[in-house]
Amino acid sequence: MRPASFRSEQWMTKYEHQAKTNLTDSSAESMTFEQLAKMEPDLLKDLVLDYGTIEGDLRLRKEILSFYKDRNPATLALMHGCSEANMMILQMLLSENDHVITFTPGYQQFSEIPRQMGCDVTLVSLNESDWTYDLDAFEKAIRPETRLVILNNPSNPTGAWLSGEQMERFISICRKHDLWVLNDEVYLYPDPSHPSMADQYEKAIVTSSISKVLGLPGLRLGWIKGPESVIRDVVLARDYSLISTGPVADRLALIALRHREAIRQPIQEIIDENIRKINGWLKKHPDFSWVSPANGHLGFLKYGGKLPSEELAAGLIEKSGILFVPGSCFDKDGYLRIGLGFRHPDLEERLDDLEAYLQKSMSKR
Amino acid sequence: MRPASFRSEQWMTKYEHQAKTNLTDSSAESMTFEQLAKMEPDLLKDLVLDYGTIEGDLRLRKEILSFYKDRNPATLALMHGCSEANMMILQMLLSENDHVITFTPGYQQFSEIPRQMGCDVTLVSLNESDWTYDLDAFEKAIRPETRLVILNNPSNPTGAWLSGEQMERFISICRKHDLWVLNDEVYLYPDPSHPSMADQYEKAIVTSSISKVLGLPGLRLGWIKGPESVIRDVVLARDYSLISTGPVADRLALIALRHREAIRQPIQEIIDENIRKINGWLKKHPDFSWVSPANGHLGFLKYGGKLPSEELAAGLIEKSGILFVPGSCFDKDGYLRIGLGFRHPDLEERLDDLEAYLQKSMSKR
Repeated sequence: MRPASFRSEQWMTKYEHQAKTNLTDSSAESMTFEQLAKMEPDLLKDLVLDYGTIEGDLRLRKEILSFYKDRNPATLALMHGCSEANMMILQMLLSENDHVITFTPGYQQFSEIPRQMGCDVTLVSLNESDWTYDLDAFEKAIRPETRLVILNNPSNPTGAWLSGEQMERFISICRKHDLWVLNDEVYLYPDPSHPSMADQYEKAIVTSSISKVLGLPGLRLGWIKGPESVIRDVVLARDYSLISTGPVADRLALIALRHREAIRQPIQEIIDENIRKINGWLKKHPDFSWVSPANGHLGFLKYGGKLPSEELAAGLIEKSGILFVPGSCFDKDGYLRIGLGFRHPDLEERLDDLEAYLQKSMSKR
Repeated sequence: MRPASFRSEQWMTKYEHQAKTNLTDSSAESMTFEQLAKMEPDLLKDLVLDYGTIEGDLRLRKEILSFYKDRNPATLALMHGCSEANMMILQMLLSENDHVITFTPGYQQFSEIPRQMGCDVTLVSLNESDWTYDLDAFEKAIRPETRLVILNNPSNPTGAWLSGEQMERFISICRKHDLWVLNDEVYLYPDPSHPSMADQYEKAIVTSSISKVLGLPGLRLGWIKGPESVIRDVVLARDYSLISTGPVADRLALIALRHREAIRQPIQEIIDENIRKINGWLKKHPDFSWVSPANGHLGFLKYGGKLPSEELAAGLIEKSGILFVPGSCFDKDGYLRIGLGFRHPDLEERLDDLEAYLQKSMSKR
């Protein structure tokens, strides 16, 4: 199984170190190690650097479980980040010739890995006008051999957010056809008004981490929340790969989750402020538009004209040090992915730079 | 792909917390976080908990490369530990119906994962008298469709160590048949007189970590060292799973590797002392024997009589709190795996307890 290049990740790896203004990062402002450790210095005392508790520090697991209504420890397995959690589920659940449904524009892992495994993948397009889910098209795509539905809610790159009645209808369709769902909730900060799908559908396997919602990808700590039968298999499979997430990641994540409201609040404020600024800027720049994201860290900025997004994004970073992942990395040209988790006092000016660069490039063609 | 239980890992997970004397652990005495951090406190200053350098901290990568003669950074990819590194290579290189050769007794991952993937696995038995490799049997097992040879050198659980002329002959057979080799060197501390296979064979893919040789599994930091073409694919595949090992693991591992001689020396002394003690004890207890390991952390202790190893090991931990992994976990009854990386002032007494328990159990049958 040789992978195709993960385009958005490779784009970031290639360009992020020359970015003066990174307007596309999917994470959020990160604390330093010292800031985090200082919140509970006692928790790093006498921490032995052995494998730790193989299934993960129980205190950490309880903190994670407090995001959910069902707090049974047998419904949770720790992983190194959410991507690894997704990979584990894809490799465990899928076999050659299985049928998989996922949504586009979406995260490349969800289509690419099943394809590499010899699955047949149906991509259902989100409604471009508002990034809602086309649930009629979804139901039509279901076949007897459909093994798994994969989504990312809220979504990377569009910010699409399936909730309320739409979510209820989505679940009732899945239930009717007895479908497994892998829902990557890495951009969801679950609370009673934004509950996890794990608490709504009995065949939902939810993955998440503290990388995005708390801005702490540096700990590489994620998890799988799902039915006991699935978690039992994951726990067996972990012995062949990660073994344990280790006491350093476990302990630092425990500190972060104990103080999550304090860590979350400034990030939420940054996201809200960025959305306000962008909506204000867009009113004055009708050649650009987006669906203002109702949840998550990301939005998909549409620009006027026919300049390929890769050409636009590559030129912009070279010329002005402003980094965007182009829509082409998500098979959707005419867009740029915009990240909302970082403080940008000069956000409007940099969007002005984008517009100026775009106009100049268009006039040259 | 649903995994079979990883027997030695599940045995450890089940029993290690009730062990008063763990005589079977495969790692070594671990430092604490504070002890390690204190070696270079400046390196943890201003450490931002973002994804870090995606391909890993270059200083860390250079420290790891200094174990090898070929220090080209394009021949190294970081992973979370050696098991995950093995898993990555197995999943990348193997497809259904491939033929795989590995050795027995050996690490279950090497046979189980290829079997789960639909490969045909040939197990070549090590010579039981001295745990040398039967290279005639190995060459006979090679077929036109043989895709990969997997070994673990030094070996878990036997302590078998392929080196010198035997290694030269092994490599010449692999070269003649143009075979890829995955060599898990997690128990090897490479130095000029114990060189890595990565520097001896152009199709060797070597995996390792600091979990065993430096007693630091808590960092979950391992790597793959191999030909550039393989590493290029690994780097692409990492984007779909771990993304990065993260700045905390990278930075702590950098400290450990910069101070590796100071960390390694007491571990080597413990191993040497344990081997001396066991050899002394065995002279007085001829019902027991082992092949005194020439390298690595592990030995395979043979006991007289026909008591199944699982019954012996389970009874012993319940009765006396002494933990061994039974040979049955490695498909080899009549043995117990003994770990050599931990200090046991009472080692001989605990071996006396083992003998007393064994005699009592035998007399009851």
